[in-house]
Amino acid sequence: IASKLPLVKTTIFTRMGQLAQKHQAINLSQGFPNFEPDPELIALVTKAMNQGYNQYAPMAGLLALREIIAKKIEALHGQSYDPETEITVTVGATQAIFTIITAFISPMDEVILFKPAYDCYEPAIRLNGGILVGVQLKKDDCTVDWDEFRAKITPRTKMVIINTPHNPSGTILSKADMIQLQESLKDTGIIVISDEVYEHIIFDGQQHESASRYHDLAQRTFVCSSFGKTFHITGWKLGYCVAPAELMREFRKTHQFNVFSVDHAAQKAMADYLKTPQHYLDLPKFYEQKRNLFVSGLSGSRFTVRPCSGSYFQLLDYSAISEENDMEFAERLVKEHKIASIPLSGFNTEDKTQKLVRFCFAKTTETLEKATAVLRTI
Amino acid sequence: IASKLPLVKTTIFTRMGQLAQKHQAINLSQGFPNFEPDPELIALVTKAMNQGYNQYAPMAGLLALREIIAKKIEALHGQSYDPETEITVTVGATQAIFTIITAFISPMDEVILFKPAYDCYEPAIRLNGGILVGVQLKKDDCTVDWDEFRAKITPRTKMVIINTPHNPSGTILSKADMIQLQESLKDTGIIVISDEVYEHIIFDGQQHESASRYHDLAQRTFVCSSFGKTFHITGWKLGYCVAPAELMREFRKTHQFNVFSVDHAAQKAMADYLKTPQHYLDLPKFYEQKRNLFVSGLSGSRFTVRPCSGSYFQLLDYSAISEENDMEFAERLVKEHKIASIPLSGFNTEDKTQKLVRFCFAKTTETLEKATAVLRTI
Ligand SMILES: CSCCC(=O)C(=O)O
Ligand SMILES: CSCCC(=O)C(=O)O
Repeated sequence: IASKLPLVKTTIFTRMGQLAQKHQAINLSQGFPNFEPDPELIALVTKAMNQGYNQYAPMAGLLALREIIAKKIEALHGQSYDPETEITVTVGATQAIFTIITAFISPMDEVILFKPAYDCYEPAIRLNGGILVGVQLKKDDCTVDWDEFRAKITPRTKMVIINTPHNPSGTILSKADMIQLQESLKDTGIIVISDEVYEHIIFDGQQHESASRYHDLAQRTFVCSSFGKTFHITGWKLGYCVAPAELMREFRKTHQFNVFSVDHAAQKAMADYLKTPQHYLDLPKFYEQKRNLFVSGLSGSRFTVRPCSGSYFQLLDYSAISEENDMEFAERLVKEHKIASIPLSGFNTEDKTQKLVRFCFAKTTETLEKATAVLRTI
Repeated sequence: IASKLPLVKTTIFTRMGQLAQKHQAINLSQGFPNFEPDPELIALVTKAMNQGYNQYAPMAGLLALREIIAKKIEALHGQSYDPETEITVTVGATQAIFTIITAFISPMDEVILFKPAYDCYEPAIRLNGGILVGVQLKKDDCTVDWDEFRAKITPRTKMVIINTPHNPSGTILSKADMIQLQESLKDTGIIVISDEVYEHIIFDGQQHESASRYHDLAQRTFVCSSFGKTFHITGWKLGYCVAPAELMREFRKTHQFNVFSVDHAAQKAMADYLKTPQHYLDLPKFYEQKRNLFVSGLSGSRFTVRPCSGSYFQLLDYSAISEENDMEFAERLVKEHKIASIPLSGFNTEDKTQKLVRFCFAKTTETLEKATAVLRTI
């Protein structure tokens, strides 16, 4: 059987998770919390199931949920999306992203992707015959060189994918970045995916510069978000995307034949839960404390801490510790020291020389203290 | 924006469902029950959420669920699948089918599909640049002409899609059919999708001839099934597929980037619930009574009832009532008589002359009695 993805293996997240289990390590690899969601949210799902939300949800999602998503975006970013035609609920942001790429990318279409990048974009592009055009983020601070970006645009460029807050680096795109992007795409037909799954996890009083804040940019953009990341329910597989009606119409043509619809009771629960904005407005402080705990726990260690403005990931530079490449180092970390992380090379970066590993700090105080106690000794 | 699916509209199921709502009609269109699942199953989901099944499930599915699926198939069909490498839990059978097609079909690959057919196959083929090769089922009884099938096989044939029990006709493939298929594909590299979502809804003491009962055929086949259809939880979006390891490996490469994984708590609940085989073994009698109620309720009507061996759909021939085409008739039925159905032409059939509409009888006794009382008057 000829493979359409000959180079793809099991994701780095599954592989490091399995290694963590095998070595009974503290698992700071795959991005998910090791604490529970709000019991109120669980109770709302139970209530919805008992109220009869057990058959197909509407294809685009429960209208009440789409309406409250529209309200949230309007309140936070001042952009209005029509719940009927411009918002679709998805099986997590991953399914949204896969479906967007499938709906728009045809053989030989070029897609610009900043690297390092989360691992799900590239295979979706390849499955559709698209051509990946990488733009390496600056080595020292993971910011974008917009001149280099513009130089990569060609008449065949169909799509650009951005991700802010950025996984794995924790950097965020600034207002100036978003304006650069918006201006660079003017007078083109290029579509943008803005992966904003960590939109509510942003630190030090900074502003999340959602693509939906930039009117001209928003006209060509799918903004993707994740309730899994925001409400500690990565296993529920619940997310959404928003885009102008003309783009969303094409998205839904594919979405309806991919998954058709999304868990009905979970949507009903989320529609009720979102009535209390505090549930997500409290998130920055909650995770900022965790970041601070993790970072302060590393003081005196031989790791160098990279700045982290958002997401629940922290990159650490181990070049003072070892000459190993990042995969070797991450494997030794899990085997010898019982701490699982993700090597930067798992994020499709072209630069294989960097000595960086990623740690997920969406963990209990106890776990973070245990982990940093070990990391300090290395 | 150039569309990859220029001809695709909102699915017929969504459109007829919306018409049903607008006209406050009895909705026998889209295939879902209007009664509730077993409260025990709901309680098991609640229990799982409270036990902490709220973060990512393993990419291939909860192992306990895959193990009990393997046991079920072994018990019913005598074929063993390795839970580790040959079974994957999916977001309903629809996501399984979409993912299989995406993982294997490249531009110019031919896919043989029997028509009429459920509407999700064709767009998935087109999105991947595949070429759809239709084989019309026999007009009178929806059986397969295997000589015609064999005549459609070319060196470019990559895949064949079968569906038993068949939606919309309710016919089932016999042992003789399965052997014809198996023999016809011998010495080819053709992959088969066997859509068996109604595997447990089969009447009059007949045997479901799963592709997994035929050893040589099973070596090239993905068998897809649906907990949604079996346990009255279409809104939970929970299904699975099984295939030999070599095929499943390719499937998972795509699956992991499409949805990554499936609702964890629902999987845990289903793993527990399936420990009682009676939960699905009782299903044939349960739905046979509904079919009988619907069919006997039509005696004396001007509709002609087509034989239905499985699934929860009944085709009715209205040629004694009207000359309208099936879309016109179905629209008039919902507007004037307040009964929503699905016209056969919604199933991509090439034959537009047939006077057939499909009714879903997965409904309460009360609904079926009300509906047939109206249908008798037409
Ligand atoms: C779907 S697995 C990955 C979870 C995640 O976002 C990460 O670890 O980067
Ligand atoms: C996913 S919508 C269709 C449900 C169904 O199987 C049908 O009505 O045929």
